[in-house]
Amino acid sequence: MRVDLLLTNVRPYNSYCKQFLEADIAIVNGRFLYIGSTDIAQLQPAEVVDGQGAYVIPGLIDIHMHIESSMAAPLPFARELIKNGVTTIVAEPHEIANVFGIEGIRAMLAAGKDAPIDILFGVPSSVPSTNPELETSGATIELADLAELLQEDRVVCLGEVMNYVDVVYKPEAKINRLIEYTQKTKPHLPIEGHCPRLLGLELARFIYGGVDSDHTQQTLAGMKERLLNGMFVEIQEKSLQRDIIGFLTEQQMDEHFAFVTDDVMADSLITQGHLNHIVKQALRLGMKPEQAIYAATFTPARRMGLKDRGSIAPGKQADFVLLDNLADFSIVSTYKNGKAVFHRDSPVTDPAQAGLFPAHFYHSVKLSPLDIDSFRLLVDSALPVACRVMTVSTGTTFTQAATAEVAVNNGELDWENSPYCLVGIFERHGKNGNIGWGLAGGDVITAGAIATTYAHDHHNLLVIGRNKHDMLLAANSVIATQGGYCAVQDGTVLAQVDLPVAGILSEAPMAELGRQVQVLKAAMRQLGYRHNNPIMSLSTLSLPVSPALKITDKGLINVNEQKLVSLFL
Amino acid sequence: MRVDLLLTNVRPYNSYCKQFLEADIAIVNGRFLYIGSTDIAQLQPAEVVDGQGAYVIPGLIDIHMHIESSMAAPLPFARELIKNGVTTIVAEPHEIANVFGIEGIRAMLAAGKDAPIDILFGVPSSVPSTNPELETSGATIELADLAELLQEDRVVCLGEVMNYVDVVYKPEAKINRLIEYTQKTKPHLPIEGHCPRLLGLELARFIYGGVDSDHTQQTLAGMKERLLNGMFVEIQEKSLQRDIIGFLTEQQMDEHFAFVTDDVMADSLITQGHLNHIVKQALRLGMKPEQAIYAATFTPARRMGLKDRGSIAPGKQADFVLLDNLADFSIVSTYKNGKAVFHRDSPVTDPAQAGLFPAHFYHSVKLSPLDIDSFRLLVDSALPVACRVMTVSTGTTFTQAATAEVAVNNGELDWENSPYCLVGIFERHGKNGNIGWGLAGGDVITAGAIATTYAHDHHNLLVIGRNKHDMLLAANSVIATQGGYCAVQDGTVLAQVDLPVAGILSEAPMAELGRQVQVLKAAMRQLGYRHNNPIMSLSTLSLPVSPALKITDKGLINVNEQKLVSLFL
Repeated sequence: MRVDLLLTNVRPYNSYCKQFLEADIAIVNGRFLYIGSTDIAQLQPAEVVDGQGAYVIPGLIDIHMHIESSMAAPLPFARELIKNGVTTIVAEPHEIANVFGIEGIRAMLAAGKDAPIDILFGVPSSVPSTNPELETSGATIELADLAELLQEDRVVCLGEVMNYVDVVYKPEAKINRLIEYTQKTKPHLPIEGHCPRLLGLELARFIYGGVDSDHTQQTLAGMKERLLNGMFVEIQEKSLQRDIIGFLTEQQMDEHFAFVTDDVMADSLITQGHLNHIVKQALRLGMKPEQAIYAATFTPARRMGLKDRGSIAPGKQADFVLLDNLADFSIVSTYKNGKAVFHRDSPVTDPAQAGLFPAHFYHSVKLSPLDIDSFRLLVDSALPVACRVMTVSTGTTFTQAATAEVAVNNGELDWENSPYCLVGIFERHGKNGNIGWGLAGGDVITAGAIATTYAHDHHNLLVIGRNKHDMLLAANSVIATQGGYCAVQDGTVLAQVDLPVAGILSEAPMAELGRQVQVLKAAMRQLGYRHNNPIMSLSTLSLPVSPALKITDKGLINVNEQKLVSLFL
Repeated sequence: MRVDLLLTNVRPYNSYCKQFLEADIAIVNGRFLYIGSTDIAQLQPAEVVDGQGAYVIPGLIDIHMHIESSMAAPLPFARELIKNGVTTIVAEPHEIANVFGIEGIRAMLAAGKDAPIDILFGVPSSVPSTNPELETSGATIELADLAELLQEDRVVCLGEVMNYVDVVYKPEAKINRLIEYTQKTKPHLPIEGHCPRLLGLELARFIYGGVDSDHTQQTLAGMKERLLNGMFVEIQEKSLQRDIIGFLTEQQMDEHFAFVTDDVMADSLITQGHLNHIVKQALRLGMKPEQAIYAATFTPARRMGLKDRGSIAPGKQADFVLLDNLADFSIVSTYKNGKAVFHRDSPVTDPAQAGLFPAHFYHSVKLSPLDIDSFRLLVDSALPVACRVMTVSTGTTFTQAATAEVAVNNGELDWENSPYCLVGIFERHGKNGNIGWGLAGGDVITAGAIATTYAHDHHNLLVIGRNKHDMLLAANSVIATQGGYCAVQDGTVLAQVDLPVAGILSEAPMAELGRQVQVLKAAMRQLGYRHNNPIMSLSTLSLPVSPALKITDKGLINVNEQKLVSLFL
């Protein structure tokens, strides 16, 4: 019979015996037909490719990730992924959903439609991250939105459920209605979870509530408890520890975990790679390639009910990667649906393609330019006042809540002469014009200012600074470009990343965006930002589900108690 | 917190580490909540049960089986299963579909609704088994029927695809439209297969065609090839061989197979049991209990996308079985949705409950009483004629095609004085009144006659005999009772099993039906039927997908060539 492609002289990975075999691979209509040697004479291939002894593995599948973490639009993002052997992702677009709701998700679906990889989606279940009392988002995701999105072919799961308190203790909460609706209408659909540190009966109740995976950083004890209670565990780089790898291997937990990236920033993406980077890290920690490949191909496909991929077997999508070296995991080429989409000897074309989103997505920062008075905090006192301070520490995105006396000068809080930065969150969705104020200390900037609309999850305008003039310049630069990140020192813009799509995404080619982010990080360091991941640190200062004291347009949030607290004690 | 049931002093099976642990089990609203010991003090149980050290395993799940093989209606069948620890089945009702089409399937769904186990369904994909040129069935299953049935909550797969020739070589065949429709509208749905002996490129093409399991009897070589090509293998009793068990264990194939019963007759069911019998057989062949239990609970649930069951873990349906002995697999009690439904010290109530099907299902044998002339075969010859003969051999349901000279007496084929039985198939669905004639030899009856409407898959009236008078009595007895099985010798009815529902099912209590079938088998042996499984042998004499020479109402069928052949050469 006629086949489109016959790949000879290769060592395909067999996902069922978890071994590399020696066999030819025949492909018809974008799907594997035959993997073997005995019946090759019966095939008439239109094309024969000599694999030169390469290992062939299924295309990598990342089932828990957020495209927006890279600040890139789906198309340039996908073009970068094929270089890294990733052929399928399940993206959870809760960032853009916080700006544009279901319209944002639909725009991501549309923008990713012609990508060289399959971009599948989870429906964000926690938009906003808390509730309208604690933060103003541009939009929310409600039951009706979920019902509509579950009809989409490319929607394959309910996105990560973040608020375990609502799941366990508040049966009437919206999240429980979303879970119940999903279970009722699509009982086979995975429901992704987020439950760091939950253990014992509370963990059991969270799982009982319908959530059957966790992708957060885990200790060995937390990992074990999740696995033995039937959770599917998604291992991101932070969980890649030697004791965990040892446990997974010795206890033969192969079926119950997958590697995921969760968040990869633009600069890491262009320098380190993507899911292949996690695989490489696992190999460095002593995992066998056969096991690591399984966790990046077979189990993620099965977890998401993707019967049509994840192995090199008859009928599966011919998504595969040629490697010339297992130990280094060095990629020679990537094929999608039986067609070569990347070879390491030819650059991938990644032209700037702006305008793939609806026109109003480029006008999402509904703020007029600020003036210097915007940053004056008037206080009805002449004496120093006790203030709450968000204390930032490197190595974590959690802050600690501290208290400090700050002087008052002419009825104005004299934060510029304190050791603290002022942080302002300006509601920018055109909803209410709220401004939330706070102070931040610790491993943040010691000079200048930074402004960004890339502020999780509501993506209002966050401005942090050590002086009003730099804050004003940074803020107005971001407002003028309709979103992005801007770092300023002494009246000079050190770095600016334009994120004109919904104020959070760039349509620049990935390499260019990656370089911009590198420049931004360098600028943040120059401003004294000591945190190991300054962008993630700053952008989560506004995330009111991340402990302990955070800030939104409503003001300071005591995260553990989920309530607003005042700046002044 | 309040829980409904706390099971203490037990050893629950953990499906994730495949080990028995020591832990208490808490159940709320029919689902497992907590399996552990540390947080028990936080629970207020309404009821505490001391398990007296019992092993607790998930309820057994049989994902490939046909209720009609037992000749029992769903309700009595299900009542028998709970004694055997089976709490979920995926039934494929192609037998009743051959009589009443989608209406038959809906009637099975309705009749099984209040059963003490979950009866889920596969949509029969091959009704009729061949096509209307080769057999007359009462109804067919078409694309529109499939589309309708896929909307049903309890439909979880496309039922077994039998005709590999159509899948591989006839893209335009109906079966390919059914597969494509299923893949398009419910891409996660399993597609069950039936492909004995298929290997190499043909097997690959069958899988490429969309079929991803096989449950037929396999050699080790066939089993290996299926597994390594990504098929899920369903192991029925016939495939339980020592070399196969060895391979599955040594190659760690745990994830890719499940035990299934396929066909269990009423007498076996009441004496040997059901899926628990297969598990016991596997244990006898040296499989570890932890592995055998996995293959009867976890993998079958996963294969069918049943996220809500198959393990003892938070959120799963509390379907479980207490065993006091692993080696014997001796069942103490069975729980469904957290409620005890069986305890070995109390008999299960199984009252006769007739009339659960639509009224016309009890009037499905549309034949008037026959007369003695019905069995005269007139021949336009005075000399002996060369006839095709179906030769039956014990140990297989396949026949061989033989040729024999049979004398002619007064213009009538003198089969009564030949070594062969006459076989007649009388179309009984009120469609066309066809009668197909053939001769059978080998390990069939040597005296008397048997008639049955339980004749796979079309279920027309099959009459086999050594003399006309006994054939007439047997046939008319079955017609008079609107279906069943009747064995006659010398003008006396030796055994009769009434199957008044669609001519193929009984609503009698299972124990009673089991005894009737035992009596029937004894009668068939008394008539000289030497085949090891006389009912299956006789009832598949009319199955035109089972090699080599079979018979339908259209006449003799050369199965391998899928064409009608004449009785006379």
